[in-house]
Amino acid sequence: MVDGEERRAHIADAVLRLAAKGGLHAVSLRAVAAESGLNIGSVRHYFDSQHELMRFAMRTTIDRTTARLVERREQTGSLSELPPGEVVGQLTDFLSELLPLDERRRTEVTVLVEFLLAARADPGLDDLAREAVQGTVTLARRILDAQARSGRFEPKDPEVEAPRLAALLDGLAFRAVLQPELTSPEECVAVLRAHLAEFVRPAGDTQV
Amino acid sequence: MVDGEERRAHIADAVLRLAAKGGLHAVSLRAVAAESGLNIGSVRHYFDSQHELMRFAMRTTIDRTTARLVERREQTGSLSELPPGEVVGQLTDFLSELLPLDERRRTEVTVLVEFLLAARADPGLDDLAREAVQGTVTLARRILDAQARSGRFEPKDPEVEAPRLAALLDGLAFRAVLQPELTSPEECVAVLRAHLAEFVRPAGDTQV
Repeated sequence: MVDGEERRAHIADAVLRLAAKGGLHAVSLRAVAAESGLNIGSVRHYFDSQHELMRFAMRTTIDRTTARLVERREQTGSLSELPPGEVVGQLTDFLSELLPLDERRRTEVTVLVEFLLAARADPGLDDLAREAVQGTVTLARRILDAQARSGRFEPKDPEVEAPRLAALLDGLAFRAVLQPELTSPEECVAVLRAHLAEFVRPAGDTQV
Repeated sequence: MVDGEERRAHIADAVLRLAAKGGLHAVSLRAVAAESGLNIGSVRHYFDSQHELMRFAMRTTIDRTTARLVERREQTGSLSELPPGEVVGQLTDFLSELLPLDERRRTEVTVLVEFLLAARADPGLDDLAREAVQGTVTLARRILDAQARSGRFEPKDPEVEAPRLAALLDGLAFRAVLQPELTSPEECVAVLRAHLAEFVRPAGDTQV
């Protein structure tokens, strides 16, 4: 007996591989069937429409990214005992989960960019697009707030710093997806680290 | 007599409007003919293929953005006599030409994002995509170098700061195109200004 959830995830994987390679244009029911090794009837059995398949694949992409972040967060543990330099390193590693630094993340980020752009002309994907775009700024705000409370970071204007960090992350991801030779993984990490390091309260400062 | 260059620009305008509204999917020869008020034969007279039409429209988008930057630069004149706060304001205005802050810029940036993504799967557009992605980092490097030479800005690591500013600009543009309600023009400008203000050499510093 085939587990329905597992089969759906298997089909979503095929969608993501096709979209990462050739864009969403390349994702037809026929291509998904071929890529997943199923016949079109089976794909239709699990997804009533192309639209449902697209939503499921976009939902899967967002959920996998979130799951990676949660897992990484749990591995890291508390940062409150670390010196500021190490906090910057840990946060750089953590937020690098959103950057296309290896094959897995490259596929996910690429597909997410494709979906986000497709959602401009497809109101049926707008709630997921909002969730993804809002998600980055919410994550940035949480991290900056937590570090500000601990007295390690000193963001000048918290209202501006969260969208600024979100824009930097999305810009790095976008540039690295579009032109990997111009924006290498090493450069992405160096830029992110430099950005986070600027929040660190100067060494001489007394904490209030 | 119709001027060929003018007619080509007129057709390119139709491509840009269609692409900004519905994505590149929406750009067929038939749709371009209807949008430009010409018949398909006329469009074909100026562009041998869909591919040539796409290249010309992408070229036009890049050239218009560049022309706006050059024009703005000439209007601004020398920044070397201005106090640092005003330099930040002038550079914010200047780089805002790359952000979708009004209808004209929104159309251009949206279409550029569509083209850049399409270029992933279309080697015939790759040279233009490279040019656009490289262009932002080259511009960022020139601005930071000029300000560093004048002693007003103090970028910590010039190698990292240019790609960082480029990623911030592209990230703001990308987020504002995808979800305008989540990333307002006011927020884009505030974020860009805060970023540039961080380069300013602290007031107490002596210049070497």
